[in-house]
Amino acid sequence: MIQTDLLIIGAGPTGLFAVFEAGLLKIKCHLIDALPQIGGQLSELYPKKPIFDIPGYPEVLAGDLVTNLMEQIKQFQPGFTLGEKAEHIEKLEDGSFIVTTDAGTQHHAKAIAIAGGLGSFEPRKPVLENLEFYENKGVEYFVKNPEKFRDKKVVIAGGGDSALDWSIFLANVAEEVTLIHRRNEFRGALDSVEKVQELKNLGKIKLITPAEVAQLHGAEKLEAITIDENGSQRNIVCDYLIPLFGLTPKLGPIANWGLEIEKNAIKVNNALDYQTNIKGIYAIGDVNTYPGKLKLILCGFHEATLMCQSVYQILNPGKKYVMKYTTVSGIDGFDGSRKEAEKAVVKAID
Amino acid sequence: MIQTDLLIIGAGPTGLFAVFEAGLLKIKCHLIDALPQIGGQLSELYPKKPIFDIPGYPEVLAGDLVTNLMEQIKQFQPGFTLGEKAEHIEKLEDGSFIVTTDAGTQHHAKAIAIAGGLGSFEPRKPVLENLEFYENKGVEYFVKNPEKFRDKKVVIAGGGDSALDWSIFLANVAEEVTLIHRRNEFRGALDSVEKVQELKNLGKIKLITPAEVAQLHGAEKLEAITIDENGSQRNIVCDYLIPLFGLTPKLGPIANWGLEIEKNAIKVNNALDYQTNIKGIYAIGDVNTYPGKLKLILCGFHEATLMCQSVYQILNPGKKYVMKYTTVSGIDGFDGSRKEAEKAVVKAID
Ligand SMILES: Cc1cc2nc3c(=O)[nH]c(=O)nc-3n(C[C@H](O)[C@H](O)[C@H](O)COP(=O)(O)OP(=O)(O)OC[C@H]3O[C@@H](n4cnc5c(N)ncnc54)[C@H](O)[C@@H]3O)c2cc1C
Ligand SMILES: Cc1cc2nc3c(=O)[nH]c(=O)nc-3n(C[C@H](O)[C@H](O)[C@H](O)COP(=O)(O)OP(=O)(O)OC[C@H]3O[C@@H](n4cnc5c(N)ncnc54)[C@H](O)[C@@H]3O)c2cc1C
Repeated sequence: MIQTDLLIIGAGPTGLFAVFEAGLLKIKCHLIDALPQIGGQLSELYPKKPIFDIPGYPEVLAGDLVTNLMEQIKQFQPGFTLGEKAEHIEKLEDGSFIVTTDAGTQHHAKAIAIAGGLGSFEPRKPVLENLEFYENKGVEYFVKNPEKFRDKKVVIAGGGDSALDWSIFLANVAEEVTLIHRRNEFRGALDSVEKVQELKNLGKIKLITPAEVAQLHGAEKLEAITIDENGSQRNIVCDYLIPLFGLTPKLGPIANWGLEIEKNAIKVNNALDYQTNIKGIYAIGDVNTYPGKLKLILCGFHEATLMCQSVYQILNPGKKYVMKYTTVSGIDGFDGSRKEAEKAVVKAID
Repeated sequence: MIQTDLLIIGAGPTGLFAVFEAGLLKIKCHLIDALPQIGGQLSELYPKKPIFDIPGYPEVLAGDLVTNLMEQIKQFQPGFTLGEKAEHIEKLEDGSFIVTTDAGTQHHAKAIAIAGGLGSFEPRKPVLENLEFYENKGVEYFVKNPEKFRDKKVVIAGGGDSALDWSIFLANVAEEVTLIHRRNEFRGALDSVEKVQELKNLGKIKLITPAEVAQLHGAEKLEAITIDENGSQRNIVCDYLIPLFGLTPKLGPIANWGLEIEKNAIKVNNALDYQTNIKGIYAIGDVNTYPGKLKLILCGFHEATLMCQSVYQILNPGKKYVMKYTTVSGIDGFDGSRKEAEKAVVKAID
């Protein structure tokens, strides 16, 4: 069982920054995310696009913002359970919680911050007979660990940035990469499209368009697929099929945790601490709602900050916290590191 | 009379970022600040110190944050009334406001955002007979325009960063710079102290310590001062005396505008839009208070953002605003500029 002070569900920008504010208050954090990587929507949906409304950043790539947030929090050594979905919650008699993921991992914490954004990202799946049978037996919706595909025969299906980018990446890892798309046209960053063109010309990516996956074959695990190309069918031998048709966020199991839900989001007390109707469970960032709510990154940062003060009261009942400026008091990391401003000198001039 | 949509009192980080969020909603802003420069506490109190809790910035110098904010808002072309204090407010029958500064400048706007921080910065003044008579006649508390001191005889009094830094700067502008401090020790950044030492050795700064200004002389304007050096007195001929003994923030005249005040701050409705008890007047950043309030820069950013949505309703009654992401819709500056993300291409690979 993983033990922590504050368990954060969702490792998007809001959840990540919460680790920092909690760290200032000496609160240890652990994060769960359904995606194999951190960063939430920023990493999954628009890592290479600029954001213009992060205060103090006239322009910042979404992926760089995630990198910077990770750099900012690393001295507070958060734990991560990635690629697993928080599914079940239980409140113990002492007021603490146990959260269990779909993979069965258990987490015990005194307070819970749901920073689940628009929900956990679920892959859009192709409509294929026996699809579920082959899931995790050759059909993969995420590339969690590229090494898994080394020297394997891989078919990627899709026509957007993920399909393009993983084809490019795996071209140097897998034995064979075949990219299938139901149109001739791909939609993505110009340099990704051009790179795939180049790798195709070099024979490092096989391209089949317009085509669709029609059937899956294999006794114990995936061994081949049938594709439909302009009405005619043929088989391709492969170890893996990775359908990358985009992800849709679903509030999912959290909707059944007894929390007040409105407009597919969790109602919180924005007049105080972003707590939900269940004491000890907070909701911050895109996942919450209140009068005047804006689903913006900068709002999640503020909500995370105020929430941490309230969590501090749960963890340290009756103790008064006096806020200190980071500039004035510096920051002590859990890893023994210390950041601080240069002190002014007091010095005679003679 | 200066006309604007939203008048912002205080050009600290909160007021500056409000210009950006207002700009996204096509709301024109004008800012008033008592200080001659923008940036509030960051510029006045700790420009060269790092801040560690700006989200996405593991570390940023306060002065750099101000520069970045200015860069972020410049395409929305805010107006500035600097070096003047907002003193008087009048609500007109149509619900709009006229705000008048201590210099008599009038501003007309439909909505007011008070982003006044801890209050307008007022210089700590030395206790000297006839001091007021000489103010603006040789006694200056700010260096608004260094050119004013070109080829003049200047005495600076003080022992902190401002006294050190302005002595250094004016050493190359004024005919003569004398730095007086009541102790032998100065307190400031190491390089500033060393630079003053160097300029003193070169004869470019005269240093008199420990000493204090005791009297002011001159019929129409300042012509000389008497200093007290270890009990013995002597006169120094000079055109200007600049006492730099630090600034203290005072809520000042705003406290008399009929706003609900609590703990020397303005009460706002944090459950909605950070509006005060007077419709059309908002308070954001350090200057406001509500349950759970934290005087942090990142909180001011959020408050400014939510406030702007409410101001939009005042300016565009009945019109529904649909929020758009900057990444998706780009930003149109009032200066004709446009920022936007690179579009995805749709392209066949052959
Ligand atoms: C194309 C695009 C452009 C955008 N542009 C801007 C912009 O310019 N400015 C701006 O401020 N905002 C912008 N946004 C919105 C911004 O991305 C969101 O406000 C932000 O991502 C919210 O952060 P978050 O941490 O609250 O949630 P998210 O980023 O959504 O992260 C939530 C995470 O929680 C995980 N999760 C949810 N439920 C579970 C569960 N049960 N178990 C495990 N994990 C779970 C999800 O997998 C996800 O990774 C844009 C969004 C998009 C899609
Ligand atoms: C040494 C120090 C270190 C700090 N470190 C941190 C940190 O690490 N992190 C953090 O988040 N915060 C920190 N802070 C606090 C931070 O500086 C404030 O939260 C921030 O400046 C508030 O911004 P603001 O725009 O609301 O107000 P301010 O920065 O105070 O600006 C308000 C402006 O309004 C002007 N004004 C007020 N009244 C009037 C009037 N009637 N007419 C005209 N002008 C007026 C003032 O002159 C001032 O320039 C620190 C503060 C100090 C002093």
